[in-house]
Amino acid sequence: MAVRDGWSCHALTVDYGQRHRAELEAAQRVARALGAVEQRTVRVDLGVFGGSALTDPTIAVPTAPSPGIPVTYVPARNTVFLALALAHAEVTQSQAIFTGANAIDYSGYPDCRPEFLEAFERLANLATKRAVEGAPLTIEAPIVRLTKAEIVRRGHELGVDYSLTVSCYEADSEGRACGRCDACRFRREGFAAAGIADPTRYRR
Amino acid sequence: MAVRDGWSCHALTVDYGQRHRAELEAAQRVARALGAVEQRTVRVDLGVFGGSALTDPTIAVPTAPSPGIPVTYVPARNTVFLALALAHAEVTQSQAIFTGANAIDYSGYPDCRPEFLEAFERLANLATKRAVEGAPLTIEAPIVRLTKAEIVRRGHELGVDYSLTVSCYEADSEGRACGRCDACRFRREGFAAAGIADPTRYRR
Repeated sequence: MAVRDGWSCHALTVDYGQRHRAELEAAQRVARALGAVEQRTVRVDLGVFGGSALTDPTIAVPTAPSPGIPVTYVPARNTVFLALALAHAEVTQSQAIFTGANAIDYSGYPDCRPEFLEAFERLANLATKRAVEGAPLTIEAPIVRLTKAEIVRRGHELGVDYSLTVSCYEADSEGRACGRCDACRFRREGFAAAGIADPTRYRR
Repeated sequence: MAVRDGWSCHALTVDYGQRHRAELEAAQRVARALGAVEQRTVRVDLGVFGGSALTDPTIAVPTAPSPGIPVTYVPARNTVFLALALAHAEVTQSQAIFTGANAIDYSGYPDCRPEFLEAFERLANLATKRAVEGAPLTIEAPIVRLTKAEIVRRGHELGVDYSLTVSCYEADSEGRACGRCDACRFRREGFAAAGIADPTRYRR
């Protein structure tokens, strides 16, 4: 959506110690396919804090819905991601940070809500040399209020090759999905509701 | 100051690729000496973004004052630090984040100002599972408005052993200071103005 709107995209991938390493390679493939002017990966070891099934190998990824905020929640993850994107934006002299945060039909993560993103935009404009010198920055979250079905449909219209992408929390080293975790279930339901063929490669 | 006020302190050190590695060891020594209940070091590779004399070995650390925001500014550093502290605070179920940010006589870094810290506090209370579940968090910056002389005096009254600490941007592997960078000059002027003997070990 950013490319279509004419932005020069500096793609940033965060290696935070996630168990699904395949998404790091997928992010590079997707950035290349969509014509990003550059792609960088920054490492931050969130595993040192523990507390999440995504960074702690001793906590299992759930395969069924649970009430409340799930154990796949990574403490303060989007705050850390956006802080790193802010550093990247300042160095690349970017005017906006695009994030794929989605509040509607996802798992109730507090840092995916529009009010969180608005508070971050306010912070960002007090935080950096560029902003203080008069070049404000916006936080763009074009899919924050869309359902998974709407996201799938929008991407399909824009020609996204979903076979390049990885959502699964337990994707194997080839990027094949488990089909059972929250991320797989929401993704699969999105394709079904959109009436679009699901090109995800699932493990047997 | 936090220990004196009765807080159980979970000390967090950020290894962001800074050239002055000695401060990482100093942080551990200081946390131990002051009775922190734990000390963790989290790694984040801010060098991948470049743009600062503190993470890019090809940019020299200035030895004289310069107008505006200096090249030792690390893009979005305090935003990244506080985001990591927020993750740590959530996992340790902490009620406050203490930061040593100082706005008065430092180098004009935008992310050391009280309005930045207030915006971060607002963000933090929208960002985490704990805050959303009714356990708010405060950002405490007890030295943000103090001069360097006042900071030195306050620490002296509290029995801080300044010989354990490292401020220098070019400290050698033993923690000995260059005596010439901004951090050294502000520190030295602080001791002089406070009328307290400076225990810093300078290189010959």
